[in-house]
Amino acid sequence: MAIRYDTGTGALKNWLVTEDAFDDRCLGKCEAIFAQGNGYLGVRNALEETYAGEVRNTFVTGTFNKASEEEVTELPNAADLTGMTLKVNGRELNLIKGELFNYSRTLNLKNGETVREICWKTPDGIQLTAVFRRFVSLCDDHVLAFGVDFSVDQEALIELEAGVDGSVTNSGAQHFDSLQARVYDANMMQMASRTTQSGVWIAHHAACRFGSDVEVKQMPVMERRRLYIHYTFQAAAGQNIHFEKIGTIHSSRDRVYEGLKPEEFPKRLLQDARADAEKAYAKGYECLKQESEKAWKDYWEQSDIVIDTDAAFDQLAVRFALYHLNIMVKHDDNRVGIGAKALTGEGYKGHSFWDTEMFILPYFTFTMPKTARTLLEYRYKNLYGAHLKAKQYGYEGAMYPWESAWVDDGEVTPLSMGADIVTGEMSKILTGLIEHHVTADIAYAVDQYAKVTGDTEFMEAYGYEIILDTALFWASRVEYCEENERYEIRDVIGPDEYKEHVDNNAYTNYLAHWNMQRALSVIKELSKEKPELYAALDEKLTLIHIKQKIEACVDKLYLPQPTAEGILPQTDQYLQLKPLELAKYKNSQAVMSISKDFNMEQLNQYMVSKQADTVMLLFLLDQLFDEETKRRNFLFYEDKTLHDSSLSKATHAILANDLGLSDMAYQLYEKALTIDLGAYMHSSDEGIHSASLGGIWESTVMGFGGVRMADGMLRIAPKLPDGWRQMTFPLCYQGCRLKVTAGHESVLVENLGSIELKFMLGNEIITLPAGANVQKGI
Amino acid sequence: MAIRYDTGTGALKNWLVTEDAFDDRCLGKCEAIFAQGNGYLGVRNALEETYAGEVRNTFVTGTFNKASEEEVTELPNAADLTGMTLKVNGRELNLIKGELFNYSRTLNLKNGETVREICWKTPDGIQLTAVFRRFVSLCDDHVLAFGVDFSVDQEALIELEAGVDGSVTNSGAQHFDSLQARVYDANMMQMASRTTQSGVWIAHHAACRFGSDVEVKQMPVMERRRLYIHYTFQAAAGQNIHFEKIGTIHSSRDRVYEGLKPEEFPKRLLQDARADAEKAYAKGYECLKQESEKAWKDYWEQSDIVIDTDAAFDQLAVRFALYHLNIMVKHDDNRVGIGAKALTGEGYKGHSFWDTEMFILPYFTFTMPKTARTLLEYRYKNLYGAHLKAKQYGYEGAMYPWESAWVDDGEVTPLSMGADIVTGEMSKILTGLIEHHVTADIAYAVDQYAKVTGDTEFMEAYGYEIILDTALFWASRVEYCEENERYEIRDVIGPDEYKEHVDNNAYTNYLAHWNMQRALSVIKELSKEKPELYAALDEKLTLIHIKQKIEACVDKLYLPQPTAEGILPQTDQYLQLKPLELAKYKNSQAVMSISKDFNMEQLNQYMVSKQADTVMLLFLLDQLFDEETKRRNFLFYEDKTLHDSSLSKATHAILANDLGLSDMAYQLYEKALTIDLGAYMHSSDEGIHSASLGGIWESTVMGFGGVRMADGMLRIAPKLPDGWRQMTFPLCYQGCRLKVTAGHESVLVENLGSIELKFMLGNEIITLPAGANVQKGI
Repeated sequence: MAIRYDTGTGALKNWLVTEDAFDDRCLGKCEAIFAQGNGYLGVRNALEETYAGEVRNTFVTGTFNKASEEEVTELPNAADLTGMTLKVNGRELNLIKGELFNYSRTLNLKNGETVREICWKTPDGIQLTAVFRRFVSLCDDHVLAFGVDFSVDQEALIELEAGVDGSVTNSGAQHFDSLQARVYDANMMQMASRTTQSGVWIAHHAACRFGSDVEVKQMPVMERRRLYIHYTFQAAAGQNIHFEKIGTIHSSRDRVYEGLKPEEFPKRLLQDARADAEKAYAKGYECLKQESEKAWKDYWEQSDIVIDTDAAFDQLAVRFALYHLNIMVKHDDNRVGIGAKALTGEGYKGHSFWDTEMFILPYFTFTMPKTARTLLEYRYKNLYGAHLKAKQYGYEGAMYPWESAWVDDGEVTPLSMGADIVTGEMSKILTGLIEHHVTADIAYAVDQYAKVTGDTEFMEAYGYEIILDTALFWASRVEYCEENERYEIRDVIGPDEYKEHVDNNAYTNYLAHWNMQRALSVIKELSKEKPELYAALDEKLTLIHIKQKIEACVDKLYLPQPTAEGILPQTDQYLQLKPLELAKYKNSQAVMSISKDFNMEQLNQYMVSKQADTVMLLFLLDQLFDEETKRRNFLFYEDKTLHDSSLSKATHAILANDLGLSDMAYQLYEKALTIDLGAYMHSSDEGIHSASLGGIWESTVMGFGGVRMADGMLRIAPKLPDGWRQMTFPLCYQGCRLKVTAGHESVLVENLGSIELKFMLGNEIITLPAGANVQKGI
Repeated sequence: MAIRYDTGTGALKNWLVTEDAFDDRCLGKCEAIFAQGNGYLGVRNALEETYAGEVRNTFVTGTFNKASEEEVTELPNAADLTGMTLKVNGRELNLIKGELFNYSRTLNLKNGETVREICWKTPDGIQLTAVFRRFVSLCDDHVLAFGVDFSVDQEALIELEAGVDGSVTNSGAQHFDSLQARVYDANMMQMASRTTQSGVWIAHHAACRFGSDVEVKQMPVMERRRLYIHYTFQAAAGQNIHFEKIGTIHSSRDRVYEGLKPEEFPKRLLQDARADAEKAYAKGYECLKQESEKAWKDYWEQSDIVIDTDAAFDQLAVRFALYHLNIMVKHDDNRVGIGAKALTGEGYKGHSFWDTEMFILPYFTFTMPKTARTLLEYRYKNLYGAHLKAKQYGYEGAMYPWESAWVDDGEVTPLSMGADIVTGEMSKILTGLIEHHVTADIAYAVDQYAKVTGDTEFMEAYGYEIILDTALFWASRVEYCEENERYEIRDVIGPDEYKEHVDNNAYTNYLAHWNMQRALSVIKELSKEKPELYAALDEKLTLIHIKQKIEACVDKLYLPQPTAEGILPQTDQYLQLKPLELAKYKNSQAVMSISKDFNMEQLNQYMVSKQADTVMLLFLLDQLFDEETKRRNFLFYEDKTLHDSSLSKATHAILANDLGLSDMAYQLYEKALTIDLGAYMHSSDEGIHSASLGGIWESTVMGFGGVRMADGMLRIAPKLPDGWRQMTFPLCYQGCRLKVTAGHESVLVENLGSIELKFMLGNEIITLPAGANVQKGI
């Protein structure tokens, strides 16, 4: 494996992720982990030159489109600006050919720039030394910049081609038509395209310049869906050539165009975008980079987690997670969620899952509450689709789509995917039909956000409504079982997706129960304390109806209880399933290797789990279970869990740490860190694992940092791995910034905010004035 | 350049086109020239393994679709069956990596099979020796077959992936949705897709088998738009592994489904296609190959041209042309034409131009009249679109589209393409608007077909109507010029497309005049000799109206006459244009290099021609011009012609030969032979040049063989190049097969037919009884 982590010294120590040998089997992985963006744009780090197997993705958040009636809405691949052809005496740069003396590509997490250095000899023996740079601006949504400095060791004819390539597809599905191409002033290239179904316009611009004294001949070229300028010149031996390309991408879904009529889009958009492009071009690479660097500096000052340890990889991997967490979200646009692969690949089509609320949102809730609020506002807007889905299924209230795209798309989960190895047909995907827990998960996240931030205004405007509306769904979803004289939730999929059509999934039942109870308390609270808001919500939702529906079932909802052996049954069926020897799959590098031996129908019959399910419940509602129950269930289920979802390991690591299983916790943590960064060459081909990166923050800060909400109050109770000497991390609680420095012996908390805070440090309740700090032994 | 032509000995001498070194810069060229097909299917010879820059095209004739409102109808790229992944101990076959000891790929023109032999060492040092074979059946439209025999020099884990890849696009435009994928009996892969706009269903099937005793583990895989089976097994050192894949492709536009309702398509099609696929699979590679070989044998017995010469390349290049001429046409389907790149590339979108009638049809008219008739019937059906276009332009009669696709599509010429190097906008394409001569060209071809074949039945059913209908167009198209007191044809493009908006293009005016005159003679003839047909056509077309319209203008239509210097002005403007130094462009390897220096507006001002224009006229209506006029004009225009169209050189070669300019004729001929087969690496990237291949037949048989229709009678007057000792070629005249053996001293003609024939041999009229032969000195 060609990724190194111990690069960088001085100020850049543990800030650089470096690929230090070229291996085209790692193209996909490196495109994803070196991806750049700003939450608006996401650009895979495909190399400038072309290789078979590359996936050249550029995504613009929220520009969803449905390629055909038979497919579901997905995030389409905008035109590519990253490609560039470089020829030396007619020989195209291609590292597989000729001779490669030196290669490295580095992602600098500190400023978001990638730098690739090569020294390569053409098949004709001319040596090319080149440094390629690029970044996506963190302070201007629309800007991408590329640069290359290069020289040849003997005089040679150089040809360069750079432009806009609209021939890209989503694995063969083309989302755009109506391509307009034009070159202004023989330099500024413009390509506009419109999504086929949703009518979103995207404007791409790019312009290039040479920074060296060379006599360049240039020629615009328009091929089908491609527009570029072909540059030719004679380079002297040893002469340094500087070339840069500044690009911009704008879309008609940008906030500024809200309310505009579709027919007004192209003209306005192209005008604005071209003006922006000219401005960015005038600034040039260096100036744009300094602006973006400043934005990164601000981010890291707020967000960096510093670990004092000899395990340098841990520090780097945590920063890698923080880097991607920052570029996966459009911090100020509540119309878009976070994709399961963020904006770094076509996997999961840009859709948002429960992953956001359960694994990614905690990072933002606990450190960047404004962003967390934006994401929850997305879910508020998403109620439209949730009502749609509830109606379709004959339920009341808000039944959130399992997969969500644009705010009003409703359910967008595909209905089939992959081959059923037994029948030879496409495998059916049931998650969109019967994986229902996401609705409670969102309510849980709203409540957690409210408790951590104290953002009453959010709750009044959006949060209460989400909790009430989702609770109403559950009250309509539960079914009365005459035989057992109780309400049950039958025929679902829990978080463990290796078990379909299960009854009374403990996770689902407990979360639904929590959701309904929380709604009752909200109704009580509002009727007492906020009569005006109560009235408004009552008019909208008929609160008495919700109250009655819930009261009729909530206390009779079946909550699975531990068996005599202390095992909480994951489902009615789970404990009766057949055992299976799992070593083969547990040791497999690739996930879901079990699906090569069993189809879903078969898998359903074995006691094997894809990911944390009951363990997830023990983490989320931890106050409901005693430590012994947690321990027994953790060990019981971990043993049967293949961690075939990237959501699994981090959660297990937290629980293991809570239970004092420190070595196991650290082992699981280390494995979680390598989900994207590890040696397996294909883990990230379809994009990085955004929930796993959120999970890294969770297991670092909520796990080892011991941060949790307990009885509505922040609790900090660090328990660091043996190999770590100290960890410093930021938190944001009740609108105040906290700086926590945790060691093995003691923990220091500084209140950087402007109000007095009350929280638990270990088991002790602390009252900490603004600007003060407290240190406490562990 | 890596193409060799002197391969093959014995029975295969001058039958093999061989690429004897691997050079990935030649991927496109070799994909095209090694393309295989049967007129129904056309499959580029993309290699089994994947390379950047490859274009993996499979076309099914007539399955046109419009990708979006803004694009024109084109022939879509069906799913790919040619790809195959082969891994040795995890290392994927890729000739650029590892070490390549031996490489050759041979197209056997005799049986249509390609054979590729490689000896390659993986980067880990395991040596793989492999022979890949494939063909498209000539006797079963639907069948493609692939085989590989290979061995490794040490025990190794082999992985093979083979299936159906529906992620291909036409340069980014996706024409298919509704992809259904399924594997039957764990072996037969099925993928069905439907074009997005035209609703054409295509069914792809593929199934594989091993012919060796290996224990194979297999697993079906369905990815987005891709379906394949993954095979794994352990190969012993030196063990020979045989693997083959049999594929079929069917479409709902197949004749058998005519009249079926669209909703009945998928079921019927999939049923039939799967049954066919199972049958083909049961036969296996060898048996299918023998069947196809038999069909090729029949073709060559009928069609081969044998040249006795030391210039082996000439012989091979002529066979190469005959090979492609045979696979570019669906001999028995009058609903489809021939694309400008046949079925070998995306260039010109599968559209038919005047290329068919003027450059390709003569081959069929003179040797395979049934096929020629099928192609002309296509034009008869195409009248629908011709009427449509005439109405749009305010003309009467049949105005044939410049570019045609499906019979009822009408004009499908795109309106813009490529960059205007001056304005930076897309260049406008005017041919669809003002290049009108195609209408006369088609009438001319109908008349030539009738004269050569004596197919009265065709003329009565279709031919007369085309001639009358097209003549009516011309009578409505000409404009009366008060100033010159004559009819003119203004604002057109002639065959020379470097001159737009010209007036009185000699080619167009003469051909229009011929077309109208021929219509008058048809009316006269029919009224006298075929009153019933006259009545029927009169009812349909109102013949008196046509007659009056034509008579009002035909004699006053301006036919440009030679200047004092004997130069026939190509257009009113041409002789006043500015001279331009052309050496730079004449010596350029790439065509249209002049467009890098001038945009069309500028080109219009210079005395430079793209291709034969007046020279083409001198060839087609040769009896109108004396030899001196021909000579002067040939030399005058050839000097100004860049031959930037592949239609140009062959015509010039014929005329040069007619004029006794033997060396020049042979030089032009040799250049014509290399348009596809030559050293330039990119000439055929977008597909072979079908008209150029027809032109090769024309310059061989009509040029050197001296075959022409003169005064309605066949004339044979060979004049071979110095380097040729003898040429034997077949003809079909008045339904009789002729075998012509031409030398420098004498010519032998054998009448293989069943009726007595009258024709000219040199200047002598010969009457040759059935079964007899005649030899005559030259």
